[in-house]
Amino acid sequence: MERIEHRACFGGWQDVYRHQSSVLGCTMSFAIYLPPQAAHGPVPVLYWLSGLTCTEQNFITKAGAQRYATQHGIAIVCPDTSPRGEDVADAEGYDLGKGAGFYLNATREPWARHYRMHDYVVDELPALVEAHFPVTTARSISGHSMGGHGALVCALRNPGRYRSVSAFSPIVAPSQVPWGEKAFTAYLGEERGAWRQWDACELLREAGEKLPLLVDQGGDDEFLEGQLRPQLLQAAAAEAGHPLTLRIQPGYDHSYYFISSFIGDHVAHHAAALLGHHGGCEADGCCGGH
Amino acid sequence: MERIEHRACFGGWQDVYRHQSSVLGCTMSFAIYLPPQAAHGPVPVLYWLSGLTCTEQNFITKAGAQRYATQHGIAIVCPDTSPRGEDVADAEGYDLGKGAGFYLNATREPWARHYRMHDYVVDELPALVEAHFPVTTARSISGHSMGGHGALVCALRNPGRYRSVSAFSPIVAPSQVPWGEKAFTAYLGEERGAWRQWDACELLREAGEKLPLLVDQGGDDEFLEGQLRPQLLQAAAAEAGHPLTLRIQPGYDHSYYFISSFIGDHVAHHAAALLGHHGGCEADGCCGGH
Repeated sequence: MERIEHRACFGGWQDVYRHQSSVLGCTMSFAIYLPPQAAHGPVPVLYWLSGLTCTEQNFITKAGAQRYATQHGIAIVCPDTSPRGEDVADAEGYDLGKGAGFYLNATREPWARHYRMHDYVVDELPALVEAHFPVTTARSISGHSMGGHGALVCALRNPGRYRSVSAFSPIVAPSQVPWGEKAFTAYLGEERGAWRQWDACELLREAGEKLPLLVDQGGDDEFLEGQLRPQLLQAAAAEAGHPLTLRIQPGYDHSYYFISSFIGDHVAHHAAALLGHHGGCEADGCCGGH
Repeated sequence: MERIEHRACFGGWQDVYRHQSSVLGCTMSFAIYLPPQAAHGPVPVLYWLSGLTCTEQNFITKAGAQRYATQHGIAIVCPDTSPRGEDVADAEGYDLGKGAGFYLNATREPWARHYRMHDYVVDELPALVEAHFPVTTARSISGHSMGGHGALVCALRNPGRYRSVSAFSPIVAPSQVPWGEKAFTAYLGEERGAWRQWDACELLREAGEKLPLLVDQGGDDEFLEGQLRPQLLQAAAAEAGHPLTLRIQPGYDHSYYFISSFIGDHVAHHAAALLGHHGGCEADGCCGGH
């Protein structure tokens, strides 16, 4: 593992590392923010999954989350959004192949060999982080758009693995929208039965753990009706009796201007779960006022 | 004037406009953040000048300043860093020509026709902003690197025009460092006497107004000794009896990770001056505890 960036930020360090991933069969970069508290003892970790076209860089340069990570004393780890490298399959268009791994394990060629982002994010990367950095095994997960889908699916598929989960503008029902249909057809094949295990709305129906979901969605998001459709998550949660706080934020779009405006609420939500605080969550309408 | 971006952010709006500049003789873009308070009445304005290679985009996507602008109720206006367009002179290298206007009025060809960023930033842009947006004529100015030089020079050359001034990692003595020597030779000619009016350390010696300077400088900035040399500003301020708060921040570099970590202090410093608060400045060591 090689450190390729090291930047002082809000009293801690925003670093980027490169390593060889055995799960993905390629060299990957990830970012880790270590707050000043990490110099004195291990801190819990929030994993952040970015959206289509992103790398490990977008969140760390644009979201402004380091301020809140320092405030609460938690680390933030940001993986890339797909396997990378010359021998990794790719496709034309921004929504399939590199930059568009959809946080699943592909079963179809030419994708199956490298596109195993679920196992990378859930298993390999946390094991690496927990072996090499001053962090505890308390984990939370969040993400944006394709990464919001990833966060919900990683949490719902792996009961007990995360203390809390949240999402910005997630693709909640990939089986029912163009981005998801294109990606799932390529990565998983045309048999829709295989898609269910990667679809948050489907997974909610049989979730073994009722981890509360915090979702923020911009009311003027350009992808709201075509790709995101949060009302499908709301219906699935209601049907399953799964706790969901869905906040439609009027006027906000799909950009990092939206994420930066509310990431403080999400970091507080995760910190409350990670640090065992009660009353620590500052998100309006979240956590039922506990 | 045409609005080309409009993004909800921290309860206000992060907009970008395009307009025809008569001072620069070309089409320019600038960013303006209007906090929610601007919906109820005019707010004062902080002008931000970016560094080499930047446009109006860098600060608004990376600094996280909108949070503090909303907290205090001030607008932030960010111009581009040079004239733009196909008929504007340019040079090879990132440190001369487009993206490197140095906030001065050029007198030599081929630069003199378009490169008049001082007059644009100090006169034309504020007049435009004050005519079209819900803002007062209370102005402050700040910037980074080349833009830190710009902020100091604009304030020192124009007594009474700004309520407060600050800078991150400024080029304090352009006449004495490679970036400044290259730019001044091109824009102003080889006669060094003409350079003095664009050099903060020189201007300090005869400043007609003792506006306190707040300067943050990263202690591990890669340009510290070669291009920035804050000790020259410290010596000039001491000699002139000009109030200066110079904070060397250990471990920080030249990047937006540094700016984002301390921009809250700077916005509070400017808000205290713009809004007439006493005790409003939260910057350690700044304002003498008033």
